[in-house]
Amino acid sequence: MSTTLKVAVLGAAGRMGATVCRAVEGADDLELVARLDAGDPVDASTLAGADVAVDFTVPSATEANVHAVLDAGAHAVVGTTGWDDASRGRVTEHLGRVNSGRPDGQGLGVLIAPNFGLSAVLAMTFAAKAARYFESAEVIELHHPDKVDAPSGTARHTAAAVARARSEAGLTAMPDATESGVEARGADVDGVRVHAVRLRGLVAHEEILFGNVGEQLVIRQDSFDRVSFMPGVLLAVREVVSRPGLTVGLENVLDLS
Amino acid sequence: MSTTLKVAVLGAAGRMGATVCRAVEGADDLELVARLDAGDPVDASTLAGADVAVDFTVPSATEANVHAVLDAGAHAVVGTTGWDDASRGRVTEHLGRVNSGRPDGQGLGVLIAPNFGLSAVLAMTFAAKAARYFESAEVIELHHPDKVDAPSGTARHTAAAVARARSEAGLTAMPDATESGVEARGADVDGVRVHAVRLRGLVAHEEILFGNVGEQLVIRQDSFDRVSFMPGVLLAVREVVSRPGLTVGLENVLDLS
Amino acid sequence: MSTTLKVAVLGAAGRMGATVCRAVEGADDLELVARLDAGDPVDASTLAGADVAVDFTVPSATEANVHAVLDAGAHAVVGTTGWDDASRGRVTEHLGRVNSGRPDGQGLGVLIAPNFGLSAVLAMTFAAKAARYFESAEVIELHHPDKVDAPSGTARHTAAAVARARSEAGLTAMPDATESGVEARGADVDGVRVHAVRLRGLVAHEEILFGNVGEQLVIRQDSFDRVSFMPGVLLAVREVVSRPGLTVGLENVLDLS
Amino acid sequence: MSTTLKVAVLGAAGRMGATVCRAVEGADDLELVARLDAGDPVDASTLAGADVAVDFTVPSATEANVHAVLDAGAHAVVGTTGWDDASRGRVTEHLGRVNSGRPDGQGLGVLIAPNFGLSAVLAMTFAAKAARYFESAEVIELHHPDKVDAPSGTARHTAAAVARARSEAGLTAMPDATESGVEARGADVDGVRVHAVRLRGLVAHEEILFGNVGEQLVIRQDSFDRVSFMPGVLLAVREVVSRPGLTVGLENVLDLS
Repeated sequence: MSTTLKVAVLGAAGRMGATVCRAVEGADDLELVARLDAGDPVDASTLAGADVAVDFTVPSATEANVHAVLDAGAHAVVGTTGWDDASRGRVTEHLGRVNSGRPDGQGLGVLIAPNFGLSAVLAMTFAAKAARYFESAEVIELHHPDKVDAPSGTARHTAAAVARARSEAGLTAMPDATESGVEARGADVDGVRVHAVRLRGLVAHEEILFGNVGEQLVIRQDSFDRVSFMPGVLLAVREVVSRPGLTVGLENVLDLS
Repeated sequence: MSTTLKVAVLGAAGRMGATVCRAVEGADDLELVARLDAGDPVDASTLAGADVAVDFTVPSATEANVHAVLDAGAHAVVGTTGWDDASRGRVTEHLGRVNSGRPDGQGLGVLIAPNFGLSAVLAMTFAAKAARYFESAEVIELHHPDKVDAPSGTARHTAAAVARARSEAGLTAMPDATESGVEARGADVDGVRVHAVRLRGLVAHEEILFGNVGEQLVIRQDSFDRVSFMPGVLLAVREVVSRPGLTVGLENVLDLS
Repeated sequence: MSTTLKVAVLGAAGRMGATVCRAVEGADDLELVARLDAGDPVDASTLAGADVAVDFTVPSATEANVHAVLDAGAHAVVGTTGWDDASRGRVTEHLGRVNSGRPDGQGLGVLIAPNFGLSAVLAMTFAAKAARYFESAEVIELHHPDKVDAPSGTARHTAAAVARARSEAGLTAMPDATESGVEARGADVDGVRVHAVRLRGLVAHEEILFGNVGEQLVIRQDSFDRVSFMPGVLLAVREVVSRPGLTVGLENVLDLS
Repeated sequence: MSTTLKVAVLGAAGRMGATVCRAVEGADDLELVARLDAGDPVDASTLAGADVAVDFTVPSATEANVHAVLDAGAHAVVGTTGWDDASRGRVTEHLGRVNSGRPDGQGLGVLIAPNFGLSAVLAMTFAAKAARYFESAEVIELHHPDKVDAPSGTARHTAAAVARARSEAGLTAMPDATESGVEARGADVDGVRVHAVRLRGLVAHEEILFGNVGEQLVIRQDSFDRVSFMPGVLLAVREVVSRPGLTVGLENVLDLS
């Protein structure tokens, strides 16, 4: 592999794909070698020698794309949603097959991440680590008012991770004397209260609050723009080449030791 | 009246009353002349020449105290809860009677305030003023987890004031596309969403968020300790002597022009 | 005047001007009747019957534009910088002359505003009102790291307004025991400390913090995008027609009573 | 060792020491067996069978106390300041000597921590981990106005840790186009800007801000009261018994994997 990584973008005409193309072109250590879109075949020829293919397509196409990328001998970074245990299992199996025939240290890798926002991923990761040390924890997510679901998927995942960490540390239910007006206390996600604010002018924001007697820890992240996902996508591109097999979640390629 | 105001405290043995006594003693322009408690008669003799009596007693005693203070020729500042239209009406009537017999500019005043926290009162006042200029508005209140009611009275009043200001300005419903998970969207107070956070370590906090396309205004207040009410109580003592009649709410003696 | 206000935009090809054009076109009660740019004459003919002309041009052109707008019988809203006492004085004189010949209630108005951000203007206004009630006050402004001056003009104005309000209320210097490391305490603007943060990802944000024993009030505003100025510009357009004479500052057309 | 840990407190009459005594008495799994103060000898007899001794005394006494505690066969948790490389070295040597004569898994431990605030320690730890992933980073610390030094020691340590992490990750200087008004940009700690706010009503608070294009991560911690150190002290007591040798910093006994 050359010192410059060659990158193909699948879904290059979409909003995220186009943003990825610009980000790759703006990075000194990366070279954009192919832009593919709906209808384009995905094979060694169209991937044009790419080391890594980045997939921001649609749920109905993404799994087939990944298999085709592996068949062409490239690594894959996937930001498309729609993956489940079955489709991830088939990719793991494919990776095992293809990597058994490759020299040591040159195995192919696939990184699937539901969220490439570094601030969002770090906030969630830190929140899970902090959870066991505090008596109380709540999540507030704030989004633009055109969002149709509440609370956000990120907030749900964060609350679930906080709840899991509390449970593993043997913590019991949080203190809460509320007798009236429980509808003001937000949604209950595994025992963690999650509040959803919808405000014109905002994009996507999350705040995790932790409290002990006399102290508070607040972790907040703000995503102002979809370009905020690019540092995470580029990081994934650079990391996937040295991580054979399937990795799920950007947090697993961050160095947080 | 001397340049030093003489102050009596009713309910001097209670937590708030005792704190008021210390605050009065610490103020150069005020002199503590009487501390009265449950069982003590309230009259010209026990009030000891006080210009102003501050009442932090109990709902069952406060109205009778105010009438007795007026009969003794003193002004009153009241922080006790439990007042309604009827009891306020009787005080207004009493003030009319007693002030008709007093020289111009020397009428007695009574100031009843549900909240003496300057930051809380200012936050609510500013929120009501800002409300007409923003497409979206929501309220988050945060308290210690031993609080039994949600949302807090202050948050309810704030939300109601925001709703009233929006209505007066002809604003219609806020944008909100939420289709699923509405339980994460908090309580609905006159069309304004109010979220209640309960966290060990906190005392009493409120945040009002306003949003337009591309901008946000946030007004936040923190009450860390009951001593935070003292600047408001002392301000009320100094202002009530020049405001004959009944005044309800500390915001009405603030100079916000 | 019809119930729909006719609006001309001067500097329509600039970034702000173009944004104003789109905002006017998107407003039901406004009609965009002229777009003028550098080199275009400004007169009754080119203004095409506009009730109000909005000037987002350049400092070297803005005063002449305003005089020409008045000669054409239209009101003016000005967002261009570069005004001083002398140029404002000439506009006041011109307004006096032209309004003396117009029927009562139909005088022309000119509104010059250095900032059309509603959240920014409200934050500054509220901060000035709150200042007299707190022992401590500090300002934190946060901007993108390409900004060359610190602290921001808005933060300077805010701090000066806070200082003036404190002085008028007879407050003395704020408590500050700092003996070492005063360089961490920010810039001193009339006795108010102002801190400037420069962070990639931010746009323009300001926080004013007030403190008393046991309590804090924080007023924060965020400008995420230049479109955030549009509600303020449209408000100015609607208000200027009923405010003959010169008005400086958007806060003076807000209803904050 | 019994399932209930026996604890001695050195400096029990001081403010921190007295608070530790109450916290130990309030914990089901701990038993307070000795309260020692200035002038009391520290030996096996006065420590009364304590498994762990907690030292909140004075810089001039703390090292001698730790040696005496080790001689008595107990573990030590130290919150007193004044330690340097030399004194820490002597404790390490003492620990080596005494632990060589003890059965495996029963070695004595000493934990010295400059800060027992969990929220403060976690904020600093997370900030160091996040630092490598962001283009910009700044620190704001906020304290009561009676503090004589700026910026706070915690903020200095945080900024230094952020700078070290950036350097290790190969990051260069942060973007900052400031040409005028650099005094508003705070203190420079190893290239990281640190701002110190002093506000009546506050106690001890720290905010670390990170920014990339389009996103922000903020980690904030609030210490409202010295009781906030107690969860950290109790955690240290429980952990030190299974960590032979010298440990410096509460973060090293936290489980952040």
